[in-house]
Amino acid sequence: MDWNFSSARMAEESHRQDSAYLLIFIMLLTLTILTIWLFKHRRFRFLHETGLAMIYGLLVGVILRFGIHVPQSTSDVVLECAVNASPATLLVTFDPEVFFNILLPPIIFHAGYSLKRRHFFRNIGSILTYAFMGTVISCFVIGLLMYGVVSFMKVVGQLGGDFFFTDCLFFGAIVSATDPVTVLAIFNELKVDVDLYALLFGESVLNDAVAIVLSSSIVAYQPTGDNSHSFEAMAVLKSFGIFLGVFSGSFALGMATGVMTALISFYFTKLRDFPLLETGLFFLMSWSTFLLAEACGMTGVVAVLFCGMTQAHYTYNNLSRDSQDRTKQLFELLNFLAENFIFSYMGLTLFSFQSHVFNPMFIIGAFLAVFLGRAANIYPLSFLLNLGRRNKIGMNFQHVMMFAGLRGAMTFALSIRDTATYARQMMFSTTLLIVFFTVWICGGGTTPMLSFMSIPVGVDSDQEHSVSN
Amino acid sequence: MDWNFSSARMAEESHRQDSAYLLIFIMLLTLTILTIWLFKHRRFRFLHETGLAMIYGLLVGVILRFGIHVPQSTSDVVLECAVNASPATLLVTFDPEVFFNILLPPIIFHAGYSLKRRHFFRNIGSILTYAFMGTVISCFVIGLLMYGVVSFMKVVGQLGGDFFFTDCLFFGAIVSATDPVTVLAIFNELKVDVDLYALLFGESVLNDAVAIVLSSSIVAYQPTGDNSHSFEAMAVLKSFGIFLGVFSGSFALGMATGVMTALISFYFTKLRDFPLLETGLFFLMSWSTFLLAEACGMTGVVAVLFCGMTQAHYTYNNLSRDSQDRTKQLFELLNFLAENFIFSYMGLTLFSFQSHVFNPMFIIGAFLAVFLGRAANIYPLSFLLNLGRRNKIGMNFQHVMMFAGLRGAMTFALSIRDTATYARQMMFSTTLLIVFFTVWICGGGTTPMLSFMSIPVGVDSDQEHSVSN
Repeated sequence: MDWNFSSARMAEESHRQDSAYLLIFIMLLTLTILTIWLFKHRRFRFLHETGLAMIYGLLVGVILRFGIHVPQSTSDVVLECAVNASPATLLVTFDPEVFFNILLPPIIFHAGYSLKRRHFFRNIGSILTYAFMGTVISCFVIGLLMYGVVSFMKVVGQLGGDFFFTDCLFFGAIVSATDPVTVLAIFNELKVDVDLYALLFGESVLNDAVAIVLSSSIVAYQPTGDNSHSFEAMAVLKSFGIFLGVFSGSFALGMATGVMTALISFYFTKLRDFPLLETGLFFLMSWSTFLLAEACGMTGVVAVLFCGMTQAHYTYNNLSRDSQDRTKQLFELLNFLAENFIFSYMGLTLFSFQSHVFNPMFIIGAFLAVFLGRAANIYPLSFLLNLGRRNKIGMNFQHVMMFAGLRGAMTFALSIRDTATYARQMMFSTTLLIVFFTVWICGGGTTPMLSFMSIPVGVDSDQEHSVSN
Repeated sequence: MDWNFSSARMAEESHRQDSAYLLIFIMLLTLTILTIWLFKHRRFRFLHETGLAMIYGLLVGVILRFGIHVPQSTSDVVLECAVNASPATLLVTFDPEVFFNILLPPIIFHAGYSLKRRHFFRNIGSILTYAFMGTVISCFVIGLLMYGVVSFMKVVGQLGGDFFFTDCLFFGAIVSATDPVTVLAIFNELKVDVDLYALLFGESVLNDAVAIVLSSSIVAYQPTGDNSHSFEAMAVLKSFGIFLGVFSGSFALGMATGVMTALISFYFTKLRDFPLLETGLFFLMSWSTFLLAEACGMTGVVAVLFCGMTQAHYTYNNLSRDSQDRTKQLFELLNFLAENFIFSYMGLTLFSFQSHVFNPMFIIGAFLAVFLGRAANIYPLSFLLNLGRRNKIGMNFQHVMMFAGLRGAMTFALSIRDTATYARQMMFSTTLLIVFFTVWICGGGTTPMLSFMSIPVGVDSDQEHSVSN
């Protein structure tokens, strides 16, 4: 063999390390599953599985960070394997693109695929308003507030590096994406009012798409030179153009592959006799949406969302009963695994990430800004919407929507994607705290909040022949 | 942003290329699925889906190789996206480790999980004999014959580089792994005699494990210096020790995680109420086998095989009905996708791989050696086994076993893993041809062969409560 022996050794060593790292996560997920089961069994609802995954991740992070010298004495095979690596490399890291290309797509697809369609379309106007206008409002409110905070920090000498206005806007964009996971799982279990469910779910699914395109437009707007971080009308217009182009392009691509799958499953009706082939086709077409969008410079995650919605709307009805179950179960499983992986990774990074910048002033400012941004989204827009809606959105609904604006997987994935500069590192650390806080406090408080707001629970979703539930 | 703009551009460009490449495969798989459906619909059995995937791969390989200038005129979005890349990089390649770490595990796990247990254990002695002794015999027969061929080539000046005895043995090991896929799909559909099925399936599943450990032991034996390629007793003994250690280690690990899953599913019986959690747990535990084995320096693929067998034997019976279906369907789908991916990639590499070494003398020698190696495995061992068996293995069964020794995914994955030297390149090219030939000719000829050998077809597998089928 022509291989350099030592380099082959190193490659093998690094492969073994990768395996050990992945193994840690799989053990975490296994633990999470067993504990969730215990919780479900005991009907304990204050902590959702994602919150649990985060706690386990946190614990492992603490062990890896502070307990490196301990494991030698334990007889645990797994840790022994991992400990063969030098302590410096023990801080488990993944390429951030893994989140975007492997973990987010199934989550977002599943969200689109399991939208309760009838109630979704009944509230489509309000949902689009919250998702588009609301996210943009939230982004700019948070961006402006943070610019104030950052400017103040500069004056009092608390700022350790550059933090431009575009950074503030970027921060506003990434923390404006609410998470469709935690609260909705609780809503689903409690059978909360279907309209409230549709509003929250629809908003949180779509604003993920808006936030991702918004943030990438802001990055595209951001000039590369350091001295030209001023605000220019032309550049803003260009960003807006990018936003529209990428969003509508991804939308069109997602719809197109969804419709194509629907047509194939419609014309090849005999495919129904072979659920494996049908499911395979469905899976491949949905995946190809993502790849097609990425290959054409659009946003795969957004395309996948609309593909999922189209598949649920058209293809689902052409599938055999068996394939309907199979696809539902498959994407449910993928979603479950990806979601819990992301959340346990989140827990882990709080201690394992090496370049954290925790700035109390920035953190307090960010929490306030996130709160105000959400308020500026929900209350004024609800007021405007109520002018036109027959079925008004009550104040108690508005408070729940305000409260249930959790930040989750998308916010995390967007903030870990680039942690090269001081500004991005501070954003990342702060974002982590925001996610932790909202998932644990707001997520855990949802059930009490619902009863406090006297929102009807146990409503039957009028036997809709729907994908979800 | 601190990023170098052009490097970010390049990273994005390469990401788009990757997406386009993957997209090509997904299109291929989609095409394959639609055509398979057509074949199944028309009850056309001469070409199995894997053979079909290979043909489509071949076609795309030809287009990529010779038709680079053509696509400009087509309106196909996909190809246009791909063509943005420079023609030199258009030869789609994957890291060979992808085959080992992502594509093989589900295939092998599925094989283990779907072993028809009763008939498997009834024939366990014969299966182990074919799989262990047979593979070793085949490996050495092929190795020795190829050493003769290579020595002859050297004499007549046909050899363009080094080709040592260990290379010959390595070649013998990798082409001794028969493929559980193609023929068995046909057998399953035709409901061929269950004992013949068990013998062939059991052998081909287990000899994959033997071949992979055998080949890596041979590589470990191979000295690094060029002048010491002689045969040494100590080194052979060491290889044998490695073989035993890795094999039994992987076996034990696979069994252990399988049993652990079974225990969890047994003690946490209430887990049955949550099929998603149950399926997730099953999936994670099975995956962790692979990672655990790799992290501990064993062979993940082998561990996964025994894990699958254990899961089928113990865990499967503890699962809820719903999870039994889910796990079966999930691994069926993963297996289907991975298998067809490998076979279409195989078709593609025939034209896209850049360092092919096609040597007619070596190829003819290899085909002969493979044939003789298989014969030296089946006929003498069957004779010996028949001395002890009550239920004799008839000559017609032996001929079918001889004929049905297809080479497939494992042989390909082992041969593409290292194509650095002249010897390995020649092996790779020859292996490809062997796979093509056996899959198309032997695979396609199975149905006529069965009727020619007057082997009963349409036998009902006495309603066994089994995982497969």
